[in-house]
Amino acid sequence: MPKTLLKLSCPDRVGLLSRITAFIAENGGNLDEVHQFTDSQAGWFFTRMAIEAETLRLPLADLRAEFAPLAADLQAQWSIRRESDRMRVVLMVSRLGHCLADLLWRWRAGELGCDVACVIGNHEDFRSTVEREGLPFHYIPVDATNKDAAFAEMERIWGDAGADLIVLARYMQVVPAAVCERWEGRIMNIHHSFLPSFVGANPYQRAWERGVKLIGATCHYVTADLDQGPIVEQEVIRAEHFHEPADLLRLGRDCERQALARGVRWHLSDRVLLHGKRTVVFRD
Amino acid sequence: MPKTLLKLSCPDRVGLLSRITAFIAENGGNLDEVHQFTDSQAGWFFTRMAIEAETLRLPLADLRAEFAPLAADLQAQWSIRRESDRMRVVLMVSRLGHCLADLLWRWRAGELGCDVACVIGNHEDFRSTVEREGLPFHYIPVDATNKDAAFAEMERIWGDAGADLIVLARYMQVVPAAVCERWEGRIMNIHHSFLPSFVGANPYQRAWERGVKLIGATCHYVTADLDQGPIVEQEVIRAEHFHEPADLLRLGRDCERQALARGVRWHLSDRVLLHGKRTVVFRD
Amino acid sequence: MPKTLLKLSCPDRVGLLSRITAFIAENGGNLDEVHQFTDSQAGWFFTRMAIEAETLRLPLADLRAEFAPLAADLQAQWSIRRESDRMRVVLMVSRLGHCLADLLWRWRAGELGCDVACVIGNHEDFRSTVEREGLPFHYIPVDATNKDAAFAEMERIWGDAGADLIVLARYMQVVPAAVCERWEGRIMNIHHSFLPSFVGANPYQRAWERGVKLIGATCHYVTADLDQGPIVEQEVIRAEHFHEPADLLRLGRDCERQALARGVRWHLSDRVLLHGKRTVVFRD
Amino acid sequence: MPKTLLKLSCPDRVGLLSRITAFIAENGGNLDEVHQFTDSQAGWFFTRMAIEAETLRLPLADLRAEFAPLAADLQAQWSIRRESDRMRVVLMVSRLGHCLADLLWRWRAGELGCDVACVIGNHEDFRSTVEREGLPFHYIPVDATNKDAAFAEMERIWGDAGADLIVLARYMQVVPAAVCERWEGRIMNIHHSFLPSFVGANPYQRAWERGVKLIGATCHYVTADLDQGPIVEQEVIRAEHFHEPADLLRLGRDCERQALARGVRWHLSDRVLLHGKRTVVFRD
Repeated sequence: MPKTLLKLSCPDRVGLLSRITAFIAENGGNLDEVHQFTDSQAGWFFTRMAIEAETLRLPLADLRAEFAPLAADLQAQWSIRRESDRMRVVLMVSRLGHCLADLLWRWRAGELGCDVACVIGNHEDFRSTVEREGLPFHYIPVDATNKDAAFAEMERIWGDAGADLIVLARYMQVVPAAVCERWEGRIMNIHHSFLPSFVGANPYQRAWERGVKLIGATCHYVTADLDQGPIVEQEVIRAEHFHEPADLLRLGRDCERQALARGVRWHLSDRVLLHGKRTVVFRD
Repeated sequence: MPKTLLKLSCPDRVGLLSRITAFIAENGGNLDEVHQFTDSQAGWFFTRMAIEAETLRLPLADLRAEFAPLAADLQAQWSIRRESDRMRVVLMVSRLGHCLADLLWRWRAGELGCDVACVIGNHEDFRSTVEREGLPFHYIPVDATNKDAAFAEMERIWGDAGADLIVLARYMQVVPAAVCERWEGRIMNIHHSFLPSFVGANPYQRAWERGVKLIGATCHYVTADLDQGPIVEQEVIRAEHFHEPADLLRLGRDCERQALARGVRWHLSDRVLLHGKRTVVFRD
Repeated sequence: MPKTLLKLSCPDRVGLLSRITAFIAENGGNLDEVHQFTDSQAGWFFTRMAIEAETLRLPLADLRAEFAPLAADLQAQWSIRRESDRMRVVLMVSRLGHCLADLLWRWRAGELGCDVACVIGNHEDFRSTVEREGLPFHYIPVDATNKDAAFAEMERIWGDAGADLIVLARYMQVVPAAVCERWEGRIMNIHHSFLPSFVGANPYQRAWERGVKLIGATCHYVTADLDQGPIVEQEVIRAEHFHEPADLLRLGRDCERQALARGVRWHLSDRVLLHGKRTVVFRD
Repeated sequence: MPKTLLKLSCPDRVGLLSRITAFIAENGGNLDEVHQFTDSQAGWFFTRMAIEAETLRLPLADLRAEFAPLAADLQAQWSIRRESDRMRVVLMVSRLGHCLADLLWRWRAGELGCDVACVIGNHEDFRSTVEREGLPFHYIPVDATNKDAAFAEMERIWGDAGADLIVLARYMQVVPAAVCERWEGRIMNIHHSFLPSFVGANPYQRAWERGVKLIGATCHYVTADLDQGPIVEQEVIRAEHFHEPADLLRLGRDCERQALARGVRWHLSDRVLLHGKRTVVFRD
């Protein structure tokens, strides 16, 4: 059953849900799934509504136009879109392909509900993996001397692709601060530790040295502060004394795959709402 | 901040959430937390709303009276109550006290938000445990010859206590079908297996014999069909080959405690809605 | 560092570990990893030892010959092999490819340590997936009229491949009892439920109807009793009221992939020892 | 069946397990449970053996005397003791009683296998809880002016009690470095975060601010570096956007109780072996 998705956040006040649901009801919309959360500390309201598209009386553009004055009054950040207008995604990879392979598999299996525009690698290792899926692969090497130019080219590709989301699927280059800001809330990374533990390089080695009994992975939005962006999802697995760093790496791959896949899926279905350093995630 | 809780389920139709939230807004109520779920297979609508009590213009009795016609029109099962009007609970125990001790501890720590009216045991083992908490302990032995009389006495105590919930905290007597029906949706049990596996007696021994690699516990409402009632919560823990039945029993205790405590907490805060054999649980 | 693996089970008696480790020490073997378990209820002893291959004074065949009299005296089931002599595996698939894709990926990534001889499907859906990995794909349709002939052909392929393990990666045909017996302890299946719950067909639908709060998957050896074979590994994931059967199917895929991959990995590294309906699993 | 426990760690070399098991076999000992681990990076060997006590030909003191030369040759740290010679424990508490109550309950239920010598509090809140268990309660307030004297008194009590383990059950005073050193490997703490995340004060508030999606607790030995000691066990639970700091505190209590109880149990049964900052834990 086709759905129209409304995503909205705004300062909290009395009667918000009533006003929004009344608007939808007046336009004939049958609500299929409603999530609401009020962050009482921040005084902020968050909602996601899935509306049965066929019950709506207005075309999408008109619905948006009708909703705009209400949204303006609420000082809301919002979007209304057809679920069938799938988001466009660019995947980024370096030399470890497990997250890339997993995302491509889930995409083919229909778990993600998006269009993959292309894959960009700073190494060529996965060109054939990508091309045999019928997807373009762009090889853009990055080193100390060409970093600005390389990221300029990447941003051009992202723009040309009409990308709604950039996924760093174990892409091991630090994204420049200015790029992070231009694409705020639209670049998602998987960090191979349970943040905020082991920010930075070699987390599995450091987890082994520290002797932790659980290791994990963190899916988060990328910001200018390395590994400090808003967390979307985390996953852990038990580690024991007999696991060497190479074992942690192996076990961690399963955490990384799952945390990233869930984070991406939720972003693509408008289930993640950002507010400062925290995320509201209406899981499915 | 004091809250008024609305819990409602009814056949699904267009505009339900709008009508209900409009009713609350018209009465000045600020919504603190809204959960909604539509079971599209059953065509049924479920909601729970926590309203800031101080913002409501009407006394509770009047609010209920005003809401009644709308609820009747929706053919709804519903309740409106002050969160501060704590539910009354009767705990039932036999000879294993871990769930009883855990619930009493959580109750004292303020995790449960209820009044414990009394504890009933078919053995006397925990009389002192209960009485040192300042609670009445009723010893009602049950055997093949007195079962009807014993349960009649228990029902009398439950009724006199004004019980909203009866918790079978490893109470090892089968509740007669007629009692189950009179107290439908108000008797909660913890079964020491991951249902529907190992219905009936000695689940840990049978789990060991079957060689399962995870064991669990199930919190469910009691119905006339033994261990077949609607499931509220389940918890599992890993079992390995070196765990003998006695180890499974020990590990399982932690599952039982947690699954039961969560189920009870959710019932007491109107977070569990029943529909046939399934439950809608708006977790916290 | 190359290893030689000893796997052994026998009736328990005093001095077993001492006799076995003395044998290894006398032959110069340095023990890298030793697991031992005594099932006191069954009176049975299980061990797995990883020996640094380079420290052993004898060639493998001679070591086996020297060990044979001791093993005979212990009435032991045992094997000694080089870890580098990788087991040979045949994968079986029907129309759901997530487990197949996952195993192939892990095999390519070096997680499994085996040779994949070929893939057999009773449908052709995954021919290209398999062939682009450079592996042979055998299409052997099975229906009510040709079942015996089809399985005879499969057994011939298994035999020709020198298969040490047959993996039913969501292969949806029941294996005939006689085949199960000939290949006892060498056919591994993934069942899409948390056994012993939901034996048989459509477990996700039935899990939804029962309203369970956790769903799971079970990796087990195949025996003549459907879904009753010895369990090697299980995995679960939380299910909530808003998950429809299709969601359980999606969530369950991740359980299936992980439980099967771990079970296969452990079999391939001689970490699973069978005893009646139970398994001893020296996890890594 | 009574057991004698051998715990040993030493530099790795060829034939260790053979020499030790031969010693036990020569003395008639039947091995009930053997754990072994070789840390190849550190070049260190760890073992724990549970021997059927009745099968041993020598009294305990003689067995130790006979073993001493072998242990000296291996440069081993080791202990041999009867499991029935239960360790003696002192519990320490401040104003949060959930871990204390849980440990006392498990001790009464026979899960811990130790003698509780007494409880020390720097507040008096739990005097009656402790005394009704028939245990001495020592009230030793600590402030900036009396810290050295207070800890001197505590060490005297620990010594008089013959304590084998001091458990900081949410005891909120930092233990002086000199005390940590004198009682190295014998003071166990529960930290209310998933270390190394959120070292120090108020971890739940900081976890909320950071927006993590899992919170946890860490059981570790106390060293002079605050929250840096060797980790014995960790436990996590999922956190969602609707959990406020007070909810994290509530959810975290269950993690704390379980991680601490497991860590204590394993220490008391000689299942934890220390090596630098890492622990070897032969779980049960």
